[in-house]
Formats: sequence, structure tokens, C-alpha cells
Amino acid sequence: MTHKIAILGASGYTGAELVRLIATHPNMDLVAMSADRKSGLEMAEVFPHLRHLKLPSLCKISEIEFENIDLCFCALPHATSQRVIRSLPKTLKIVDLSADFRLRDPAEYAKWYGVEHVAMECQAEAVYGLTEFYRNDIRDARLVAGTGCNAATGQYILSPLIKAGKIDFDHIILDLKCAVSGAGRSLKENLLHAELSEGYYAYSVGGVHRHLGEFDQEFSKIAGREVKIQFTPHLVPANRGILGTAYVLGNAQVVHETLVDAYKTEPFIKVLPLGETPSTKHVRSSNFCHVGVVADRIDGRVIVIAALDNLTKGSSGQAMQNANLMLGEKETEGLMLAPVFP
Amino acid sequence: MTHKIAILGASGYTGAELVRLIATHPNMDLVAMSADRKSGLEMAEVFPHLRHLKLPSLCKISEIEFENIDLCFCALPHATSQRVIRSLPKTLKIVDLSADFRLRDPAEYAKWYGVEHVAMECQAEAVYGLTEFYRNDIRDARLVAGTGCNAATGQYILSPLIKAGKIDFDHIILDLKCAVSGAGRSLKENLLHAELSEGYYAYSVGGVHRHLGEFDQEFSKIAGREVKIQFTPHLVPANRGILGTAYVLGNAQVVHETLVDAYKTEPFIKVLPLGETPSTKHVRSSNFCHVGVVADRIDGRVIVIAALDNLTKGSSGQAMQNANLMLGEKETEGLMLAPVFP
Amino acid sequence: MTHKIAILGASGYTGAELVRLIATHPNMDLVAMSADRKSGLEMAEVFPHLRHLKLPSLCKISEIEFENIDLCFCALPHATSQRVIRSLPKTLKIVDLSADFRLRDPAEYAKWYGVEHVAMECQAEAVYGLTEFYRNDIRDARLVAGTGCNAATGQYILSPLIKAGKIDFDHIILDLKCAVSGAGRSLKENLLHAELSEGYYAYSVGGVHRHLGEFDQEFSKIAGREVKIQFTPHLVPANRGILGTAYVLGNAQVVHETLVDAYKTEPFIKVLPLGETPSTKHVRSSNFCHVGVVADRIDGRVIVIAALDNLTKGSSGQAMQNANLMLGEKETEGLMLAPVFP
Amino acid sequence: MTHKIAILGASGYTGAELVRLIATHPNMDLVAMSADRKSGLEMAEVFPHLRHLKLPSLCKISEIEFENIDLCFCALPHATSQRVIRSLPKTLKIVDLSADFRLRDPAEYAKWYGVEHVAMECQAEAVYGLTEFYRNDIRDARLVAGTGCNAATGQYILSPLIKAGKIDFDHIILDLKCAVSGAGRSLKENLLHAELSEGYYAYSVGGVHRHLGEFDQEFSKIAGREVKIQFTPHLVPANRGILGTAYVLGNAQVVHETLVDAYKTEPFIKVLPLGETPSTKHVRSSNFCHVGVVADRIDGRVIVIAALDNLTKGSSGQAMQNANLMLGEKETEGLMLAPVFP
Repeated sequence: MTHKIAILGASGYTGAELVRLIATHPNMDLVAMSADRKSGLEMAEVFPHLRHLKLPSLCKISEIEFENIDLCFCALPHATSQRVIRSLPKTLKIVDLSADFRLRDPAEYAKWYGVEHVAMECQAEAVYGLTEFYRNDIRDARLVAGTGCNAATGQYILSPLIKAGKIDFDHIILDLKCAVSGAGRSLKENLLHAELSEGYYAYSVGGVHRHLGEFDQEFSKIAGREVKIQFTPHLVPANRGILGTAYVLGNAQVVHETLVDAYKTEPFIKVLPLGETPSTKHVRSSNFCHVGVVADRIDGRVIVIAALDNLTKGSSGQAMQNANLMLGEKETEGLMLAPVFP
Repeated sequence: MTHKIAILGASGYTGAELVRLIATHPNMDLVAMSADRKSGLEMAEVFPHLRHLKLPSLCKISEIEFENIDLCFCALPHATSQRVIRSLPKTLKIVDLSADFRLRDPAEYAKWYGVEHVAMECQAEAVYGLTEFYRNDIRDARLVAGTGCNAATGQYILSPLIKAGKIDFDHIILDLKCAVSGAGRSLKENLLHAELSEGYYAYSVGGVHRHLGEFDQEFSKIAGREVKIQFTPHLVPANRGILGTAYVLGNAQVVHETLVDAYKTEPFIKVLPLGETPSTKHVRSSNFCHVGVVADRIDGRVIVIAALDNLTKGSSGQAMQNANLMLGEKETEGLMLAPVFP
Repeated sequence: MTHKIAILGASGYTGAELVRLIATHPNMDLVAMSADRKSGLEMAEVFPHLRHLKLPSLCKISEIEFENIDLCFCALPHATSQRVIRSLPKTLKIVDLSADFRLRDPAEYAKWYGVEHVAMECQAEAVYGLTEFYRNDIRDARLVAGTGCNAATGQYILSPLIKAGKIDFDHIILDLKCAVSGAGRSLKENLLHAELSEGYYAYSVGGVHRHLGEFDQEFSKIAGREVKIQFTPHLVPANRGILGTAYVLGNAQVVHETLVDAYKTEPFIKVLPLGETPSTKHVRSSNFCHVGVVADRIDGRVIVIAALDNLTKGSSGQAMQNANLMLGEKETEGLMLAPVFP
Repeated sequence: MTHKIAILGASGYTGAELVRLIATHPNMDLVAMSADRKSGLEMAEVFPHLRHLKLPSLCKISEIEFENIDLCFCALPHATSQRVIRSLPKTLKIVDLSADFRLRDPAEYAKWYGVEHVAMECQAEAVYGLTEFYRNDIRDARLVAGTGCNAATGQYILSPLIKAGKIDFDHIILDLKCAVSGAGRSLKENLLHAELSEGYYAYSVGGVHRHLGEFDQEFSKIAGREVKIQFTPHLVPANRGILGTAYVLGNAQVVHETLVDAYKTEPFIKVLPLGETPSTKHVRSSNFCHVGVVADRIDGRVIVIAALDNLTKGSSGQAMQNANLMLGEKETEGLMLAPVFP
């Protein structure tokens, strides 16, 4: 059976990535795509790389007949997303890629995003969309909140270790290196090629990056107590990719075994042999996440490193994985594309 | 029916690209992969981005039982390729990605490649592998000679124009910009990141690039007279992509109509509206080729520009397209993957 | 004697490049820098790489006391530049980096830039700033019009050949590859790292690039008849550099000798041995221009290739070279910095 | 007075960078350059970006008359360097850029470099070359051992903090991101553009990177007790630059004040205002190092980040700074070149 799919906010990178993935999904039919400021345009005018596809023209959200839609991907900016989703039919299955339904506590949302949440009734039914940890809830969910791409990376490293109680909860450092497409297609000086290429730097240093809201929420929930990590993201001159390097206290062998065990049946999370480490280049444009564990020369110190593609596993691929579950499809359908290398 | 496939020379970039494409082809089963100097290794050790796939270990060519193989991709270096292919079963279907069977005249081969051809008996049955122009021959061929990636780009621009007699045969200039993966995984100083990144330059200037052998052969055949073009390739700091800019004498509208007509039923060649031009970024990691035509301000001068991915449409994707035809598969099977952008 | 220098429009890339060059010039003292929208800021806030320098704060143009200035670099946008320069003291030495005073014919200016020229009285005294060809005029000039960066590249290749009558004036093609800093620090989608990196394409195809106005003017003047060339620029994923590949009809040896002779005493233009070709990487961040000549395999066809840095030799370095002449300094003062490689 | 300078091992990146710096040094005259495998070639054949300079031809070390040399930069590979330096005149001033004289304990050298030290008599007089901390010793030294580029970065962050006792010595983590030129011009698969561009990863993870030998030696010496840090380097797709991100326990304000105080008279080390962080792009191709301090949201945790150019401040610029001291020149002579941006 073919599912009728809509994408709201199709003119951004995550929207385009969704189209790319849907294009070879055997059971999804893309019937509507909105992009308010570009409505009336063809997708090929906004993203010429999709020129070979027969796609509906970009339209306004108000022009979509949602009763004909089986599932809607919502790739709108945060704050906008909640207003739109609140107004959609209450039976429509939705995968939201924004930050609006990730945080269950409205005070946390207001703290990290600087605006009040106005759709807490939708928040109440939202399931946090990190598939590997919320699979069963997602299968039955109407509204799934896609995670932050950095937040996904950090949780793939840390959640099983916290759950198993195998690391010191009070000394966790996550040094993360992310590529520029995570910032979207926005016109900012620091995203220009001339500014970024051949340079790199830390940003949101000191515990002010919004994805910390997700870390705090999820890690504290798993641990059954407050867990706060240190998190420093860096921007590197590449287009796709996140590399998270975590410094934890524990035993490397135990850490490795815990992760191997946690992911042993997962189709997309690959734990490397102890001592090996991943590269973003090896997961690029795919839904895979590679995780490596190394013992430091100092006893009791462990380095855990994960690599994924922010636009795929960190965002649109994750959204597709969740949509597959919500629609009764095979979880991996349309997502087994091998990484593009070199 | 599933076809049993072998790849000889799997440890290079075109080999890895073949594996990527075969991985999602519904009717191909990769049963043997050779890499002489790396035999015994797993493919994931050579190309960790393929870690998620169940693949045969790398072996020596002599270890492959070719009677069990339906089709063999040969991604060996030129000169080596002809020696190996000569020794394979005479009934085995082969798609060769090397330069060894592209030139029908042994003197031309010796001139451009600096060595004598030793397998002219195989050459005799080889079909030149530019699918769009040799489709019927390829369908019945046992041995198909994949084209040079630059040669493919230039022919997509020029062959229909020469065939239709719509341009001046004596004044054709092809200025080509190619990415670095076309040079393969070889250890050369000029291919180092530190040497290439942030710089670009022409190479093989003055009519000495080997792909001119293919241009001379094919254009002269189509024209029914000798046609020699000027061809200057440039290396640019990118990993995948070829952009060919051709300067021809003719009428832009006629040139555009000729190309539109030539490619109107082609699944992979997309001629843009007159006046629009392509970008390598819009075809990256895909089997598509975008072609644009623009009239110069000077009457009678036309610029035709084509973009494709050297590893896909220029090499391994083309090989897969030909293999599909040889095996009775749908020509586009496994090749409709959308470009990865950004 | 130390000259008092002002920069108008210091917050763009050419402004910053001027500061970099002035910083090690022994006889220039930077006393005023304007940047209207950023006035009040320190330069280090706009360009942190200049943090180590003691610089005047950014101000409004109206705040500068021009009677204390010996020479003013004007790095404002075109159309703005002419309005500002018109209002400056008539005795102030000015090197303008905009396009406003490059074209002597107001009709040509209006045609290429789409606005009427309002300062033709200043235009009348402006000297075209390609130092090697206008050195004596520049020495005595009050107002020098810096050239387009692409225009400089093309003229270094072609002007001596046209002047010497050594090539066919009616068949000149210039295929140019330029880096992204030429587009300035402007917020445009196509200049984003995610959009540009790993892709390249032609733009302003068909004879519509504004620098053609300069080519038409200068080449026709030298030839004593109308000369129109074909010119196709391409954007490549690099920050600095222009590579111009010219296709001309003539004799390679004669072409080479003509260029060697034309530049034999030039400190910055280096003609390579016949058959060798330049790379943008070898002139990066310097005021040098490398020129190479190669004979094509087809008799009578010659390829001439030049490489320079668009921000240095193509713009701010050229401006400094002219300023040195206007101030009675040694022409090379502050400009002999070696290229940065890798 | 002009000093006669020799470079041994001029065909690598640090050799070329030395030539670039010497080229505009008013009091250095480059009279001999060795490159054993390339002896007889001109430097412009090995590094065409130096084409504009009059330089001695590359020669063998044995051809250099060292009695005419005032100071010799030795940019040879480790293990080779000690053998050569042992054989040079005992009165010759030498700045060694290799690792051979950095570690005072021969057991440590053997442990980290895997070979025995054979020139301990030279080691005995070698001064560790981190100028800011060994300035007076360097002024009087005959043999100065240039530091590792990563080692320099880490020490600029940590040495003043350890010396002042302002951080916990047992919990220091240094997560470092370095560009590819640090690996030199060697032909390795992972240094190819196609392999590195668009990807990044950690290497030498777990405390096995050789520069830890320098950290252990220097930090323990300063602290008066054993100090071992965690150090994880990452390779990022850029050519020049090192960004070190250190996680320490202490008070951010105190840490910041300590660094401001330590570097207040240093010409090249710039401590940013508390809360600001550096970028490699802002120090590129210069001898400057920018240092930033940020308080984490967790009390008592501080992030300190430093950026420098590995080839300049991390290697050849540092060497020049030391040579200036050894020759009685102004320490900053030839080194105040502004960074190249963009």
C-alpha cells in the first residue's frame, strides 16, 4: 500500500533530504510540499538536483488538503512549527523535525528557545523521536518529535552507558564537531564559503547550546537523577557530518561491551571493534551511525566517539525511520542507501 | 532472477562505487571481489563506509570461479585489464571500466597509452560503452568498454550536434573542469589535500590528454570525416564532478533543439531550458547528466555546458547501466538515486 | 616620509586585504577607516584576524578629515563610489576599487551597470588602473580606477598579444575560473559553504558579465578597431584565485616570446617557460601573476593561461601598487610577500 | 648586519614556510638549501609559489660549507635530524624543527619515537624552543629544539595555568583539531583530497600521540610533580590550523586573569576578552596565537581554547622567532605579517 505523504517546509535542507529519501522509497508517494515564501515554484527551481523527479509544485500550507494525507513531515522553523501543528487535523500522523516538541517541560522549552510554548496539548502526545530508544512508543504515536542532530549523536554515545550505570554521571564531556548544513540554508556571514572554508572554531561554548535541553531531559530521565554534561560544539569546514567525542570515566572494555550489547540488533548503529574510531566520511549521506571506544592511557578514562550525517541520521533519515514505524512499514525501508564515498 | 556479479579491482574508487550501486540493486548479488594486493582483507577494512554490507572477502582473481558468475565488472588499471580479460572465459559477460577496449585502432591505443595492445581478439568484440549512443549493441554485447569520464562528458555535449551537422566541425573547443576522484586512489603529490584544496589549474594542456583518442574516434565516426577538437582539462578542488564547457559555432536555438530532441526519451540526460546552465553539485553521486545551452553575445557562437559525476555517470553508474542492458534488466534499475545535496 | 592613508568601505574583503598590506608597508600610516553600517566598531570586531594591529575605529565617511589624508582607497560598492568620490576634495589622491571609473564611455557604463553615471567630471581625470599598461599615467594621476579582477586576468593574457598583433582578433575565447571571495562578503545563497563547496558551475554565460565592458574598451583601444571576445566565468569552490584559460589563434612560440618580452622587466608578472602552466595555488595571497603558454596539437591554436589572486593582484594589491606610484614610493613596496602555500 | 642562513630539508612544507618568512626578513640571507633526493633542482621546481625569489639551488647537505653559515634551520625528519646535527660544526647555531631534541630523557625519546637516541651529547645543550617560556635560554643557545605544533598549542593554553597552580592537575583534557599540513608532504592515502575533504575523525586516540611526550615533560617540570593529561587529536579538512579545546577544573575568571597576565607583554599571544573564543581562520599563515576562556554552565569547569597556524607559530614561525633571538635580532623581525583572510 502506498502512503500519501506531505512535507511542510520543503525548501530547506532537511526538506530536500526528505525528498531524496522518499524518491526511492517503494511505498511513499509525495503528494504535497509547502514552502510559504516560494509557493508556486517548482521544487527543481529551488533544488535543481531534484530536477529528474516528478514532484508537486510548492504550495502554501493552507492549500494542502490534509484529509488526503497519511503522514506529514513538518520541517518548519521552531516556534512556527508548533503553531502549524496545532492547527492540523488531530488524526493526522506527523513527524516534526523542529525543536518544538522535544522538551516535555514548557519551562525548559522557554529557557532554551526564548519563547513560550503555545501548543502544550500537542506536546502531551508527542513522542521523543530517537528511534532506537523509543521504538515502541513511536510505532503507536500520532506525533513524533525529531531530535536535534547533535542531541542524537550524544545520546547514541551516552544513553546506553547511563542506563547501564557504567560511567560516572558527574564527569561527562562531549566535544562535538559538526558540519555546516546543520545550520540550514540561512544567510549568515559565518556560513559563507569564504568565511568557513579553511577555518574552524567552537561556538555556543560554556553550556549554552540548545541541544543541552535534550541531553538534560533524556539523561536525567534514564539515570533517575539529574545529569548535566559539558557540551562544546565546533563548526568545521564540511557540509555534512557530526563527530562527537565523549570523555567519560569508566572501564573501556565495559563501556564497549555495553554499547555492543545495546546496539547488537540495531540496523543502523554500528559499534566498531574496541580501539577503532569512526569518521564522518564513512557515514556521509547515509542513515548509519558508527561508534568507537578507546581506553585512554590513564586508567579509568574512556573516549567514545560517534559519527553520523546530521541531515540523514541526525534529521531526515531519522524522520523517515520513524515514519516507517508509524505507517507499519519495515523500519529500514528506503534507508539502506550506502554512504557516498569519496 | 538474481544475477551473480563479480568485481575485479574492487579496492579503487570505481570499485567502491560499483559496490554502493549494487548494494541497492534488487537483482544483483555480489559474489566475488578481487583486489590483488589486498586479498584476504574485508572490504570494510579498505572502505569502512561499506561496513554495513555483507560482502565477500577480497580475493585474488585466480581464486574466483568464473563459471558461477553472470557478469563481471573489471575495474583494473589499463594494460592490466586487457591481460586479465583475455584470460577470462570467452562466454563471460564483462563490463570493463579501464581504457583498454575503448579504442578500436591498435595504433591509436599505442599512441595514447604508450603500450602495445595484446588482446585485439577481445577488442574485436568490444562495444563502446556510451549507453545512449550504443544501446542496442550493448544489449547484445559480451564485452563492453566503459568510456573515459571526460570523454563521456564531451560526447554528451557534442555527439548529437556533430551527428546532426549543426555545428562547425573544425572549431570545437572543450574546456573541462574535473574533480579529483577521477585520478583514483593513487598516491601522488598533486592529489594531496594540502596541494589541491584552495587551488586549481589546467593539466594535459595542448591536446595530450588520453581521452582525446576517444573523441577523435567517435566524432570522426559520426561525422564521416576526421574531426579533431581542442580539449583542455582542469583540476578543481572537489571530489566528484565534471563540468564540460564547449565553445561551438552554430545557432543556439538549433543547438538546443538538437540536444532536446536527441535526449528527449533518455532517463538520465536532462537538457535544461535554453539559457540555463548546470552545476556539478546538482548531479553529485547520481547517474544524471545536466546539459545547458546559451547563445553568446557574438552571433553564431554557442556555449554548451554539461555536468555529471565522474564516478557515477562517468564510470561506475555508466557500467551499471550497461550491465542492466546486458542482463536484460530495466536500464535504470538501481540507478535512480537522487543526487546528494548539499 | 610616511603617507597618511584612509580606506572607505573597510568592512569588505578588499578593505581587509588593504589593511593587511598596509600593515607591513614601511611608509603608510592608516589614519581613517570608514564602514557606514558598522561605524563605531573596532576593525577587530569585524575582522578578528586583524586583532594584533593598532587601527583607528571604524567611522562614517563624514567623520573623516580629508585634508589630513594623503591618499584614499575607496572600496565602496559601485554606484555608491562615484557619489562619494564626487564629494571628496578635488586634490585628494584616490585609488577607487569599484567599477565606477573603469569605463570611459558613460553609455557603456549605463549598459553594463544599469545606472546612469553621475560623476563624469571625475571620470574625465580617471586613469585605468592596470599598472603594467598605464604606469606613467598612474604616476601622475589623482584618481585611479582599479580594474575588475577578471578583467585584469584577461588583459594580462591578451593585451600584449593584441598590441603586437600576434593573434586573430576575431576568435578569442576566455574561459575563466574564479574563487568565491570575488563576490565579496555579501549574503547570497549561492555563496554559502553548503551550496558552493564540492560543486562548480558557469555563471553570466553568453557575454553578459560586466567585466566585458572593460575588455571591449581596452582591447578595442589597443587594436585600433572593435575587438569583442567570448568570456565565460565559472565559480569554483575556493576562496582566492582566478585562473584564466584563453584560446587564441596564432603561433605558440610567437605568443610566448611576445609575452616574455612584454613582461621582462615586470616585477609581478612571471611568464613560465613555454609549455608550462600556472596554478592559482602558487600565487595565493600574493601580488604575483603567473602566465603560461602551450601550443595545441592543432596547428595555429594556442592556449594561454594566467593565474592570480583576485583579492591581491586582482584588487587590493593592484590598488597598493598604484598607490605606491602615485605617492612616489617604490612600486613594489609592501607587495613582495611570498604566496602562502599550502 | 645580514646573517647567512641555511635550511636543511627545504623540500617539505616547513622548509617552504621558512623560505617564505626569510624572503621578507630584512637581515637574513638564504645562502644554502639542502634536499637530498631533489638536489640539483631549483626550489621553484619543487615549490612554484617561490618562483619570484632568487634562491640557491637545492643541494646535498655534504655540499654546504657550514663555516660560512651563521644559522642553520634543520627541517629534516626525526631520527635523521640527530645524525646530521651530530656531524655539523659544534659552533654552528642550529634551530631544529624535528622531534629529535625535544625530549630530555632518552628513555622517553625511545618510548615515543621507537628508536634509540644517538646524539645525547647534542641533546645536553639543546634548549626547548617554546619561545615564550624559554626566551632567555634560547637567546644564549647554540641548539634549539623546535616544539611539536600540537605541543605548542597545548602549552600556550596550559603552561601558565599549571605554573600558577590555578587548575586541577589531575583532570586536564585537551581535545585538539588540526589541519592536514601538519602531516607534511608525505604520500599517504588518508592525506589525499578525496579521502580527507568533507570528512573528519580522531586519530592517535587514547594517549598514544607522540606530542604527549612533550606535554608530560614540560607540565611535570612546571608542576614539580607528574602531570599527565588526556589528549585526543582530530584531523579536519583544512590545510593550516590547530584548534585546541581544553577542559579544566578551576575558576574561569581566575583562569582568564592568569592567562592575560602571563601573556600581557607577548607580541604574538593574544588573550581574548573572557567569553570570546578564537578561530583558526583568524591566525592563518601568521605567527599569532589567539586564546579564549569560557566558564561552563557547571561551576568549576572552564573551557580554554587556542588557535594557531601549525606551519607558522607551530613550526617555522616559531623557528624564526627563536632564530631572531639567537642572532640578536628583534624577536618579531619578519614575523608581523597579518593573517591572510579569507
